[in-house]
Amino acid sequence: MQKIYNPLREDWKAVLKRPTQTVDDIEETVESIFSEVHENGDAVLKKYTEKFDGARLKDFSVAQSELKEAKALVSQELQHAIQLAKKNIETFHKAQRTNRVEVETVNGVRCWQEKRPIQKVGLYIPGGTAPLFSTILMLAVPANIAGCEEVVLCTPPGSDGKVDPAILYAADLCGVTQIFKVGGIQAIAAMTFGTESIPQVYKIFGPGNQYVTVAKQLATKYGVAIDMPAGPSELLVVADDSADASFVASDLLSQAEHGVDSQVILVSTSKTMLDKVEWEVELQLNELPRKEIAGKAIANSKLIFMEDDANALELINEYGPEHLIICTENENFYSNGIKNAGSVFIGNYTPESAGDYASGTNHTLPTNGYAKQYGGVNLDSFMKSMTFQKISKEGIQKIGGAIESMAEAEGLQAHKNAVTLRLKSLE
Amino acid sequence: MQKIYNPLREDWKAVLKRPTQTVDDIEETVESIFSEVHENGDAVLKKYTEKFDGARLKDFSVAQSELKEAKALVSQELQHAIQLAKKNIETFHKAQRTNRVEVETVNGVRCWQEKRPIQKVGLYIPGGTAPLFSTILMLAVPANIAGCEEVVLCTPPGSDGKVDPAILYAADLCGVTQIFKVGGIQAIAAMTFGTESIPQVYKIFGPGNQYVTVAKQLATKYGVAIDMPAGPSELLVVADDSADASFVASDLLSQAEHGVDSQVILVSTSKTMLDKVEWEVELQLNELPRKEIAGKAIANSKLIFMEDDANALELINEYGPEHLIICTENENFYSNGIKNAGSVFIGNYTPESAGDYASGTNHTLPTNGYAKQYGGVNLDSFMKSMTFQKISKEGIQKIGGAIESMAEAEGLQAHKNAVTLRLKSLE
Repeated sequence: MQKIYNPLREDWKAVLKRPTQTVDDIEETVESIFSEVHENGDAVLKKYTEKFDGARLKDFSVAQSELKEAKALVSQELQHAIQLAKKNIETFHKAQRTNRVEVETVNGVRCWQEKRPIQKVGLYIPGGTAPLFSTILMLAVPANIAGCEEVVLCTPPGSDGKVDPAILYAADLCGVTQIFKVGGIQAIAAMTFGTESIPQVYKIFGPGNQYVTVAKQLATKYGVAIDMPAGPSELLVVADDSADASFVASDLLSQAEHGVDSQVILVSTSKTMLDKVEWEVELQLNELPRKEIAGKAIANSKLIFMEDDANALELINEYGPEHLIICTENENFYSNGIKNAGSVFIGNYTPESAGDYASGTNHTLPTNGYAKQYGGVNLDSFMKSMTFQKISKEGIQKIGGAIESMAEAEGLQAHKNAVTLRLKSLE
Repeated sequence: MQKIYNPLREDWKAVLKRPTQTVDDIEETVESIFSEVHENGDAVLKKYTEKFDGARLKDFSVAQSELKEAKALVSQELQHAIQLAKKNIETFHKAQRTNRVEVETVNGVRCWQEKRPIQKVGLYIPGGTAPLFSTILMLAVPANIAGCEEVVLCTPPGSDGKVDPAILYAADLCGVTQIFKVGGIQAIAAMTFGTESIPQVYKIFGPGNQYVTVAKQLATKYGVAIDMPAGPSELLVVADDSADASFVASDLLSQAEHGVDSQVILVSTSKTMLDKVEWEVELQLNELPRKEIAGKAIANSKLIFMEDDANALELINEYGPEHLIICTENENFYSNGIKNAGSVFIGNYTPESAGDYASGTNHTLPTNGYAKQYGGVNLDSFMKSMTFQKISKEGIQKIGGAIESMAEAEGLQAHKNAVTLRLKSLE
């Protein structure tokens, strides 16, 4: 771990620099698979599923019988855990519902705003060694609360043509309407254009490797919205001497095990705490099955000493972490003052993994500094706001003159005329 | 105008096709100006301001004295109109504030969501023949309500190095913090990277020609968010015999005058109404100063007869218009059933131009079918939602087991360990 004491403000940018990713060199691959899928649909999906996943499939769609079979393979303990998590995520996301906002801005000018669901959404769930069924809860639960009509899920099959049972169990439990065994670039392309078997969607959600990330970015060029730009996961912990060093170390490591490019930072106003955590990390690291991955990420991680809370907070806001854990006595100073963070975990008994799975908050969060301009996935991510207005005769008489002046000044005579005609009819 | 009677469902896509735009051929220009600005900042801005706007500027920043001068040049009538519009936009966008959402999902597991402002936003306002000062109201007013710290505005100068007084007046009135005389691709690049004089921002808002559109799209590659993808403006009116044909015609024309690629559609269950509106459009068109532009857009516009309301509504939802005017007896059928539209105008006395200027709703809206997945600009566009959680000892004991099971099943041992350590400490 790299220790940095009181970095000068002009060095913050360098100190906080994230591991760079270059994606330019895979854009061509992504573009060519997109155009193939656009032109030849399912046949292309079959080709790439055989090539990349080693599975020959007749049908991408997951059958009802496969869902039944999957349920039988998931332990009762895990089923109960998933159900508890689902309940909490549901409770928190249902509370995010907003009422229609209605205002009479001027007598006779009634304006309102309503949120309506995005009709068709697509969820992408990666395959590979760790089946990320928790992400299904984070996406399908709010999609259902929002009232999305079609919730399509794509996930790559194993070489046996099957999908992990926990993924199928979670998808079925959370009301996904259609599940397809297609992964990678070809899955994103399929949901972008639609194929014979996979429907086109209006917005695509979910994580993925760099190919999926670039594919989602390309999808936006074809008119599909995406949840947010992606990047490697990251955690910043701010801790003082009231923190428990072993807890802090365990949180840093739980972030580090995600991948070698995971970013882990500890900020503290206590040099003792930095040393203690460093020691604890060494101890715990050796016990981890993924210690090779975690070790590499930890080698790049930073322990930053800051002289006081005010400067520490500014540094954190400059970074804009995806996850922020606050373990300090004056926790309100940090939770009230944080301007840029995806999700915030407060106190010694709030590990980041609680939010990853079961507290109720969403784990699809802005990384890579995007917390400065994007929020994490929430209920509104599955809806769009629409405005309405109804103006009475009295209303148009009250604001008509102003519209006429402004339209005239912008050189838009027909805009003015639409009002003038109505005003004249009321004379 | 093209009249279409009862189009078959399989033809809807063709009937509703928007004028195509191709942008690929300007991407190279945009990318090269971006890299020039990135490398050489202000010097490059100067070069292109001279080349494209014909103005040699020493300083891009608008001085306090220029604001004073501008105010004196704006008529009292227009000032009052702008003030009324501002008041209404303020009222409607203030009403959109949301409270902190707080829930205890399980005893001891407290989760909440708060919205916090995006610190730095950039507004782009095009120059040219029509000074779009109304867009400043639509963007700067909610930015201020949200609490954005820096609200930067870029707009191209005329060849005399000046900016239209109404633009400066509106920007000053609405609390823009810095105004710069830079336009086009170079303005978007400047706000993306920052230069010696222009600050980098986190999100860019505002309309523009196809160069600006492509530049905003490119900005997202460099980590800047944008309000929404852009396209030519469009209006769909649904009217039955209760509508006033001259009013409907005036609305269609007010959309048509925006540009030759504006899209104008009338849907009706009454053939008589289609004929009447067609006649009225001919009459009114000849009186317009921008009749050449409007005439071309009208030539491409469509009058569509639909047998019944249910099919009409489905067709409208398939199209997803930016602006929807409802002038029908059963207006609730349409306003309740509309799934995809930017902003909806109801009744004979609610012209679209009311929403463009002064009713209080926002006029920055999704075009090009994006109403299916994007809402228009609103207060939330200037904020991001953040989640917080605080878990007590009791709370982690209640949900800890579920987190352990799920982390184990996803193969993330360090995630599990962060909980196990805490649970053990409480034994």
